[in-house]
Amino acid sequence: MRTSLCDRLGIDLPIVGFTPSEHVAAAISRAGGLGVLGCVRFNDAAELERVLCWMDENTGGKPYGVDIVMPAKIPAEGTSVDLAKMIPDEHRQFVDRTLTALGVPPLPEEVDERAGVLGWLHSVARSHVEVALKHPIRLIANALGSPPVDVIEQCHAHGVPVAALAGKAEHAVRHVENGVDIVVAQGYEAGGHTGEIASMVLVPEIADAVGDRVPVLAAGGIGSGRQVAAALALGAVGVWMGSFWLATEEYAQTMSGSEAMQEALVKAGSSDTVRTRIYTGKPARLLKTRWTEAWSAADAPAPLPMPLQNLLVSPAHNRIHAANDPTVVSMPVGQIVGRMDRVRPVSEVMAELVTGYEEAVRRLTPG
Amino acid sequence: MRTSLCDRLGIDLPIVGFTPSEHVAAAISRAGGLGVLGCVRFNDAAELERVLCWMDENTGGKPYGVDIVMPAKIPAEGTSVDLAKMIPDEHRQFVDRTLTALGVPPLPEEVDERAGVLGWLHSVARSHVEVALKHPIRLIANALGSPPVDVIEQCHAHGVPVAALAGKAEHAVRHVENGVDIVVAQGYEAGGHTGEIASMVLVPEIADAVGDRVPVLAAGGIGSGRQVAAALALGAVGVWMGSFWLATEEYAQTMSGSEAMQEALVKAGSSDTVRTRIYTGKPARLLKTRWTEAWSAADAPAPLPMPLQNLLVSPAHNRIHAANDPTVVSMPVGQIVGRMDRVRPVSEVMAELVTGYEEAVRRLTPG
Repeated sequence: MRTSLCDRLGIDLPIVGFTPSEHVAAAISRAGGLGVLGCVRFNDAAELERVLCWMDENTGGKPYGVDIVMPAKIPAEGTSVDLAKMIPDEHRQFVDRTLTALGVPPLPEEVDERAGVLGWLHSVARSHVEVALKHPIRLIANALGSPPVDVIEQCHAHGVPVAALAGKAEHAVRHVENGVDIVVAQGYEAGGHTGEIASMVLVPEIADAVGDRVPVLAAGGIGSGRQVAAALALGAVGVWMGSFWLATEEYAQTMSGSEAMQEALVKAGSSDTVRTRIYTGKPARLLKTRWTEAWSAADAPAPLPMPLQNLLVSPAHNRIHAANDPTVVSMPVGQIVGRMDRVRPVSEVMAELVTGYEEAVRRLTPG
Repeated sequence: MRTSLCDRLGIDLPIVGFTPSEHVAAAISRAGGLGVLGCVRFNDAAELERVLCWMDENTGGKPYGVDIVMPAKIPAEGTSVDLAKMIPDEHRQFVDRTLTALGVPPLPEEVDERAGVLGWLHSVARSHVEVALKHPIRLIANALGSPPVDVIEQCHAHGVPVAALAGKAEHAVRHVENGVDIVVAQGYEAGGHTGEIASMVLVPEIADAVGDRVPVLAAGGIGSGRQVAAALALGAVGVWMGSFWLATEEYAQTMSGSEAMQEALVKAGSSDTVRTRIYTGKPARLLKTRWTEAWSAADAPAPLPMPLQNLLVSPAHNRIHAANDPTVVSMPVGQIVGRMDRVRPVSEVMAELVTGYEEAVRRLTPG
């Protein structure tokens, strides 16, 4: 399975695993891939610093990376209090009414209401970059396209390559022109923010557009060794996996109270996702539950633009998380959720990726 | 590239090519694949009979198949006159108004208004089966799932295997339980009637569900040898390609006046399709043009159920076809349209599928 990506990143397997869980990221790196820690959940740079120190101690000297979320268009800046004033009452009322209808109780008073995810404000994302570059990271990825050119230059000054996700070939070309070092071709079937072109079409298109200049990874729909083989056949030199790690034992270690979410993922089939703007304001694929269905009802308001929509729903996410009800979950996940049929250790996932890949290649090889 | 499918169907390459053009179908068969002639355009069984006689004379003794369209749920039966009465005036007025706005002239009076496509009425599809079984066909496929069990039995009595398209694993299981011999796993990226699960996820899912009992073909997003290799890596034993043949020289031979359509396909990128009910009443992926855009405008009515929607738009399709304007085209096509960058002979497409496949497999093979 070794490709040119392995030399580039100092890894044994061309498997890049994106996850908000440091336990998952470290386990992926220890197993020979590159664990990439999602930073968007850290509103506080000091918290990220603590977690990266933990990564340094728990990756056994293996490479790891971080993922920031810097939208190409700079969203409204401001404190959560300023931004909150821009959310219409109609939207707040809809959320309250819906949570009540779904049987999601209010939070106990002693629980801190978190401010909502601010990680995609440029100011916050820049603070993540500052913190991360003090650690021995091997990759900074941006889930929303090219970071600003000065951020790319800052990473290069520290010898850290920059990866950017692309849902169209023209975006990939723009990323490379901006100085991005690795392009992740992310297909329609992926979880989270995603475009409309499926991996089977997108990966060779992006490989043809920029593959002679930068490594191209395939993302979207990958959770088995056969799919890794397909991705490499399509012209990728590695894969980027995100959703599949949600159903791992290590994920639950970082994210307490994940039982209902993991139960819902294990039950779901590949049809049980929906691409919607309700999570952040941009189209993102989520697990289809009673919460997402409520937002497609006739009385639901249109989602707000980024970053307001997430500020609106963040308190609801906290209530939903605390309610621990598998039928009311708000979680980005790709169509590969159909293959997530139990909660596994990361090492088991990684081992199947290798053996499944080898079996697939043997099937294609004559004689 | 040889797989078990080749022995099963008596072909050299596991490439099944669906097309409404007898010139394309014959060329695919002559090149070592299996040309499958779409019958839905033949309202008149005698016309199908003439075309199949032509196929018998022009396939050089190589196997070919036919494709019928029998929806699982029996649609309203009746003559086109009876059915036409069920179409609301609002819809007819919208179509007239839209064609005028798009600059599509009325047909000259001497041109016959065709009755619209009736091929998916069960009565018409059954007459197709009757006609086809008198020819040495090697496959009958149904683009809309399992045909009725008595039709499957009729095919089996003639020694002809039956293939059915499936967009979900549970559909594939039902097809096999109904006696279907070959399942075509058709991903979201495909042209025409299509589901929501992309090939990367769907193909292994269907291979796991029924691949031990029947051959599984991959459809959706395939137009290069790399994509054939990916499909086989995912667990398919062959591919089903439809869209890619639209941009062939042979297609224009059967379908006169295809210049504007082929020009539009060659210009289009992989983002230039839309999944919509406006063609038949069921979700189908079409080339995005000013015609499809008009149907998503605020003043557009909701599409009618099958078979009424196609009866409504068929006269419009005739006018659109005659207008020969690349910006107003009504044509089912998949996301692979982005790779259709010029009009080629079928033999050239087939040759690239083989060489591209071999290159991809070499890349995956160590040493």
